[in-house]
Amino acid sequence: MIVDKLYESVRKKSVVCVGLDTAIEYVPKSFQEKYFAISDTIFEFNRRIIDATYDIAACFKLQIAYYEALGIEGLIAYKRTIQYIREKKCIVVADIKRGDISKTAEMYAKAHFEGDFESDFITLNPYMGMDSITPYLSYVREKEKGLFILIRTSNEGAHDIQYIKDSNDKPVYKLVGDKIENLANDYIGKCGYSSVGGVAGCTHVDEAKDIRKDLSNMFFLIPGYGAQGGKAKDVARYLKNGNGGIVNSSRGILLAYKKHDNDDNFDVYAREEVLFMREDINNAVKAYEG
Amino acid sequence: MIVDKLYESVRKKSVVCVGLDTAIEYVPKSFQEKYFAISDTIFEFNRRIIDATYDIAACFKLQIAYYEALGIEGLIAYKRTIQYIREKKCIVVADIKRGDISKTAEMYAKAHFEGDFESDFITLNPYMGMDSITPYLSYVREKEKGLFILIRTSNEGAHDIQYIKDSNDKPVYKLVGDKIENLANDYIGKCGYSSVGGVAGCTHVDEAKDIRKDLSNMFFLIPGYGAQGGKAKDVARYLKNGNGGIVNSSRGILLAYKKHDNDDNFDVYAREEVLFMREDINNAVKAYEG
Repeated sequence: MIVDKLYESVRKKSVVCVGLDTAIEYVPKSFQEKYFAISDTIFEFNRRIIDATYDIAACFKLQIAYYEALGIEGLIAYKRTIQYIREKKCIVVADIKRGDISKTAEMYAKAHFEGDFESDFITLNPYMGMDSITPYLSYVREKEKGLFILIRTSNEGAHDIQYIKDSNDKPVYKLVGDKIENLANDYIGKCGYSSVGGVAGCTHVDEAKDIRKDLSNMFFLIPGYGAQGGKAKDVARYLKNGNGGIVNSSRGILLAYKKHDNDDNFDVYAREEVLFMREDINNAVKAYEG
Repeated sequence: MIVDKLYESVRKKSVVCVGLDTAIEYVPKSFQEKYFAISDTIFEFNRRIIDATYDIAACFKLQIAYYEALGIEGLIAYKRTIQYIREKKCIVVADIKRGDISKTAEMYAKAHFEGDFESDFITLNPYMGMDSITPYLSYVREKEKGLFILIRTSNEGAHDIQYIKDSNDKPVYKLVGDKIENLANDYIGKCGYSSVGGVAGCTHVDEAKDIRKDLSNMFFLIPGYGAQGGKAKDVARYLKNGNGGIVNSSRGILLAYKKHDNDDNFDVYAREEVLFMREDINNAVKAYEG
């Protein structure tokens, strides 16, 4: 089960998931000038970040939208980045948030669990229901793949639909969480967590403790730390003994160099930021779990 | 407003939306053998279908998953197909069902309303809430672009989340519909419909009449006809005077040749199928509206 590999990676390295949401404007001008093709610029920037952080980060996450925005060139960089991460025996999460009818889901599974864009984990959107999830499960069981399904997202708008309450006063995100938990139970690894995980943003934390308790075998992908406003103490509520989740930061890491006067060393500052996050979250976990 | 162009296209041609969900195995073997690169095979197949139907179809829809499944080569075919449709002054819907935080949505907007993959309409998933939709609206107002946002989908699993009822017994899909309708009101074209439309599958029709009445200015993208089980009489309930919606069929059109003994003429049979659909739906509209 891929979740065991991720669990071990968190244990040995940290909970930090390095978000490679590489917009071209995030790449220092001096570095951009070195390359002609955009695919080279983006890939070479990512490679420097990966080389500087892979020994201390649990995994890497690529938000595919940033690559799609650059068209074919962007997707070539996307493919090369994923392949580079996998060559280094690191775990890569494709943040694609797909969700569609089963026939289409089969195609998305093929797209992101095989071939050019093969990743270890993908994110999924559950709005279309459980038959939009099932086509991915054979990959979870047979091909060492994993899922993170949206439960409660980190944005303000999360309230619009995810917080609609049913007649028993239970919000949609909890009902979704229950359904995913049911599914997840069939894919539990040796570590006690499931390869079918959930996305739970750390920006609204009131119910975090309940979510962790209710969805006890769920491994969480936790966005929202840093640039989106989430704090280490918020993250801590989703973890157990400092594991059971990964905490993503993208702009905080990629743009760490902007706080300094040395663009050329963007990778050095990215590493510093990951080390800071690891410390920050470790301390919060200690304070929270006592 | 792009919706006026679509409305006119429906009026002059038909409600049929030709779904170019082109899996490689849908392409006749004899045709596959003509080309070396997969991107050529897929594009040339699509081109034949487009040439054979563009004078009788309202628009074309590409389900991007089928192209992603073929990696970079598939996305090259995707790009070329979209560009070919737009060169013919026809309308193209990118069925991408994206949905993400606003920063990421900006990137998806850039990806699918500009550059390599520029389309006229895109489909969106509303689970993450209204701030995941707003980044696209400046394109609707200023760049003649349109949206189809998932309301009630055509699959069985639609019941899992879209039918959760709130304390007033109102299902999630209706609450979503109300929110989209509110937004849509600011983007009404001369035809009386909005460039912010909705996706409403024609496979469960009990509430179709209510949906059409409640969301009176909404232009619908209606999947589910044919291969998915939806019938013309089901479709008719979402239309008004035979307009106000487009009806997608993919496999029914692309694989029409399989009912005959002449693979080489797959485009001729695709055209026949579009003409049949037009007639079928026109008759159902007459029977329904009297």
